Amino acid sequence: MPVGPLSGITVIDLTRVLAGPFSTMLLSELGARVIKVETPGTGDDARAYGPFKSGKSAYFISVNRGKESIGLNLKDDDDRAIFEAMLAKADVVVENFRPGTMEKLGYGWEDIHAQYPNLIYAACSGFGHTGPHSKRPAYDMVVQAMGGIMSITGQPGGEPTRVGLSIGDLGAGLYTTIGIISAIYDRANTGEARKVDVSMLDCQVSLMENAIARYAATGEIPGPLGGRHPSITPFQVFRTKDSHLIIAAGNDVMFHRFCDIIGREDIKNDQRFASNGSRTEHHVELGKLIEAVLETRDTAEWLPQLDEAGIPASKINNVADIMTHPQMAPRQMLVTVDDPTFGEMKVAGNPIKLSGYTDSGRRATAPAVDENRAAIVKEFLG
Amino acid sequence: MPVGPLSGITVIDLTRVLAGPFSTMLLSELGARVIKVETPGTGDDARAYGPFKSGKSAYFISVNRGKESIGLNLKDDDDRAIFEAMLAKADVVVENFRPGTMEKLGYGWEDIHAQYPNLIYAACSGFGHTGPHSKRPAYDMVVQAMGGIMSITGQPGGEPTRVGLSIGDLGAGLYTTIGIISAIYDRANTGEARKVDVSMLDCQVSLMENAIARYAATGEIPGPLGGRHPSITPFQVFRTKDSHLIIAAGNDVMFHRFCDIIGREDIKNDQRFASNGSRTEHHVELGKLIEAVLETRDTAEWLPQLDEAGIPASKINNVADIMTHPQMAPRQMLVTVDDPTFGEMKVAGNPIKLSGYTDSGRRATAPAVDENRAAIVKEFLG
Repeated sequence: MPVGPLSGITVIDLTRVLAGPFSTMLLSELGARVIKVETPGTGDDARAYGPFKSGKSAYFISVNRGKESIGLNLKDDDDRAIFEAMLAKADVVVENFRPGTMEKLGYGWEDIHAQYPNLIYAACSGFGHTGPHSKRPAYDMVVQAMGGIMSITGQPGGEPTRVGLSIGDLGAGLYTTIGIISAIYDRANTGEARKVDVSMLDCQVSLMENAIARYAATGEIPGPLGGRHPSITPFQVFRTKDSHLIIAAGNDVMFHRFCDIIGREDIKNDQRFASNGSRTEHHVELGKLIEAVLETRDTAEWLPQLDEAGIPASKINNVADIMTHPQMAPRQMLVTVDDPTFGEMKVAGNPIKLSGYTDSGRRATAPAVDENRAAIVKEFLG
Repeated sequence: MPVGPLSGITVIDLTRVLAGPFSTMLLSELGARVIKVETPGTGDDARAYGPFKSGKSAYFISVNRGKESIGLNLKDDDDRAIFEAMLAKADVVVENFRPGTMEKLGYGWEDIHAQYPNLIYAACSGFGHTGPHSKRPAYDMVVQAMGGIMSITGQPGGEPTRVGLSIGDLGAGLYTTIGIISAIYDRANTGEARKVDVSMLDCQVSLMENAIARYAATGEIPGPLGGRHPSITPFQVFRTKDSHLIIAAGNDVMFHRFCDIIGREDIKNDQRFASNGSRTEHHVELGKLIEAVLETRDTAEWLPQLDEAGIPASKINNVADIMTHPQMAPRQMLVTVDDPTFGEMKVAGNPIKLSGYTDSGRRATAPAVDENRAAIVKEFLG
């Protein structure tokens, strides 16, 4: 188990699928002990999401590695006694049910706080615990649509496009993590245990900050821009002979160096392209001129020159490219889970590097449903 | 200034543009005092990014509201004395320079830690402070391409598509925030101040967790899927008579209810669509059948029925739709900045709701460069 700033913190984790489990996975990466409380038998819904090997989900392992599991029926008196013994000794309980579910079980914030005044309670839901939409169901796809990110992602005039990863869930998971760790610090500081209430929709709105400020200032509704930055040029995707290339020439100096590399003094001296503002205004013409040159060679031929000139550039990496990227091993960004079914499997590591804590690069796999019951019952019920 | 778990924490903020400033904005939202240290005269580069009013940037206000500013030339002895007096009393220093920049100034982690052993040092850079790519320049666009998110975003077979918001920067800002608050808690716990080293690329890899696990388990390289979930169906965008609709029917019960709403018993009973697995396998045929019905009515006609049946659904909101969404006001997700140039301007609020702390819904605007110099010098130099 990783050792980190949260070592010594015990998290009772009722979360399912992605937003909550991603948050508690990050807590585990920072040293916390995370005990999943699952529906007996089937467990977390995400255990049923592929890809599978011998019925086991790789998706599930990725966000639940290093956790323990106990199967508890929270409507059964014996299981409730175990759950309550766990709550009495834990630091944090986290859930991502629809608001109202915990209250029906008698474990809403008011009840929990009265009974376990030292326990932090974190809820991550679709719309939060207040407001008229509070009790509606939500999924990543819904909040991506409702929160506006889909309205600015995709090709201009093209079909609505989802962000390819579950930014609705993962975003909420990150903010929930910030909320929980803030509350842990706050409790150490003030003695008060708090409720953390995070809504997936709110998190999307927070990420939309730039679009919101633009709209608030100008009344203009931003739309999708394809592979281009709205206000910096050239800062976009270009076609090459064999594939594509991203170039991010963020200022005049870089733009001039870039013109030198493509051997186009005329573009450098063209008044239409004299400043970032005018380049952005004339981005269609400029893009065509640049692409005509870039299309004469392969991406791999252009990249070394751009790197040498200090112009931020990249090919468009796919997942296989990431796995072999030279920055991954020194950063320990792919860690090894040793799973009885999958064998040694690489999963994404911990991007939060803190001095004084070392990372073994290995993680325990995800537990089977109820795998740790005997030890947990013995420990908490005594 | 918001009151929260980080009240009493002072952050010296050397960050520019987006990733770092977004992180320190979140710290400010949680109660920390954030003092921007800027290049005298021009200040943070983002002050030059539009949209503008009377030369003032709305973009800048959004992520720098509530902060203070002092202009310091860190190569000037008098200014260095002020800076060092600030470091001596602060809790956290944050920077997002290219690795090596702080070392050249004599303010690298080793120097800082020796001189100010109680000061947490957080660095947010393109590739991190270790590894062969460490000193390369990066921008959001580059890490979106390099980290793989662009390879899974967009229409199948279409042009490479950037996520419409700066997920490279914002993602790194969120992980940096987690790292800083973890370090603040850790210092309270162990007495040790640590270095937090976050790389934009690492953060993208962390967000790619599902794609990485899929690839590790199957060897398949995922590509863009347009507006569809890779393994749940129907969980996608559909065309309606006037626009589009997202439907996220995550299980058989919801799928059957959905078939009832569109009045298609035949689809419900079709063996090809009997389970989520077979629906996903036959998603093209199913999508066409569903869309043929949805295209007979407007989005606004379908939504109430779907909501009533508890089927997660949404239209594709643009920024203007968000601003009037009924969940925004009760959640205080649009807060008011009272700026002398823009007047009252709405910006995205704080999605981390903690019991016991109230949100006034108002924020101080972003400072002018060096606006708080006199008070800061008086306070820290005594």
